[in-house]
Amino acid sequence: MEFTDVRSEDGVTGRSFSVAVAGEIVPAVIWAPEGARGPRPLMLMGHGGSQHKKTPTLAARARQYARKFGYATLAIDAPGHGDRISRAEAAALARETGARVTGRVASAWTPERLKLMSERTARAVPEWNAALEAALGFDFVGRGGPVGYWGVSMGTAIGVPFLAQCRLVTAAILGLAGLRPGASDFEAAARKITIPVEFVFQWDDAVATREHGVGLFDAFGSAEKTMHINPGGHMGIPDFEGDSWERFFVRHLGTVDAPARMAAAAE
Amino acid sequence: MEFTDVRSEDGVTGRSFSVAVAGEIVPAVIWAPEGARGPRPLMLMGHGGSQHKKTPTLAARARQYARKFGYATLAIDAPGHGDRISRAEAAALARETGARVTGRVASAWTPERLKLMSERTARAVPEWNAALEAALGFDFVGRGGPVGYWGVSMGTAIGVPFLAQCRLVTAAILGLAGLRPGASDFEAAARKITIPVEFVFQWDDAVATREHGVGLFDAFGSAEKTMHINPGGHMGIPDFEGDSWERFFVRHLGTVDAPARMAAAAE
Repeated sequence: MEFTDVRSEDGVTGRSFSVAVAGEIVPAVIWAPEGARGPRPLMLMGHGGSQHKKTPTLAARARQYARKFGYATLAIDAPGHGDRISRAEAAALARETGARVTGRVASAWTPERLKLMSERTARAVPEWNAALEAALGFDFVGRGGPVGYWGVSMGTAIGVPFLAQCRLVTAAILGLAGLRPGASDFEAAARKITIPVEFVFQWDDAVATREHGVGLFDAFGSAEKTMHINPGGHMGIPDFEGDSWERFFVRHLGTVDAPARMAAAAE
Repeated sequence: MEFTDVRSEDGVTGRSFSVAVAGEIVPAVIWAPEGARGPRPLMLMGHGGSQHKKTPTLAARARQYARKFGYATLAIDAPGHGDRISRAEAAALARETGARVTGRVASAWTPERLKLMSERTARAVPEWNAALEAALGFDFVGRGGPVGYWGVSMGTAIGVPFLAQCRLVTAAILGLAGLRPGASDFEAAARKITIPVEFVFQWDDAVATREHGVGLFDAFGSAEKTMHINPGGHMGIPDFEGDSWERFFVRHLGTVDAPARMAAAAE
């Protein structure tokens, strides 16, 4: 594996690389503490619609996790996102997504849109598998350590089918998404998820209705699952939920100095 | 104010006292760090139905808050509870409540039961006011510091009308209760609450339906309010919610060494 770009800042190193899946090049980045050696918990972060693998909030969280907990964090560009589209396409996508999540444009689930999302997910799952496999081969990550997943909105749309078939991830933050009537594949995937889940939901989300959000929470097969509901729209998750995500991950994955035992036992 | 009993254990002192309200003696207890002097955040804890002011889980939390955050915690026996009834009455009440919260007996809102609860609440609010006023007079509590409220189940049934009229409490943990159709006074009280609220709810509660729980969450007038939903019954709140309560209170009230500014500004 060759890193195409390696940059260190404030004690955290970001390394760019890519994996090839079904003839497509999937751009990836992995952050870890500068000078990291040996195994550590690995976090997978799935960005939202129109965003990309280095979206500022995601990158900031990855750096924070590296500094505070010694984690490595892996992110990839979803199909049709980031470096996989042109700047003009990305700008158009951001405008379209922005209009939907703020409610300026109704978030209609047209057959075309559902087909696009379904195809995107079908491509994204093997891409995540390949990127995860590559990351586990890095000497500063290693195999057998705890793996977590964080992804809301499109990060949940892709994360649910990914988690349904990935046995390595042991805890996940999901949210800002719902279970649409008729989305039987998605519901079946949610039911297959049995790891602890913290599901964050905005009560006035223009993209996901309350009923659909509760429906998705109900569908998760996990014995430990918590739904955090806050007022406000799609972009308005309160900062204190970010603190809650940190505690959730530390509780389930541990830290580099004290990784979770459950995952260690699976080595 | 005379303390009828003073006991220190593991660095925390519990002091028993009482206040007289409308001809009734209301037994109270306040925990604080051993040797505590000067102002500190004050926590009010409202026990659940059939419990009492020194119920083990409540007392343990109060001691924990004293040790970790330097808080003082005040608890009182609700009307018809604790030292205000005989041991035989308390045992019968515990049996009856136990049958309801575990679903062995339907939690029917009969007119008699609604009347009993309404009268209990009407008595409890001035009792809380009087106990709070007494506590603020203790030199190890003082006036002008932040005040929080914790109370689930009956602690919410009483807490909502109490908080609706108390301007001193600036953050509250509530939960395990719902908004019944026709409970217009309760709903009006919930709408008057504008402080940050974390509302913990059990998704399979035999006492409060999902719909009624969501209805109460919706009724709170607070800009900052979060509903935490977990699977399981009335007695099954996961331990990690207790950790969340601590962080919620530290965020809003601060600690004895760094009390919250909002409340300090109101001195």
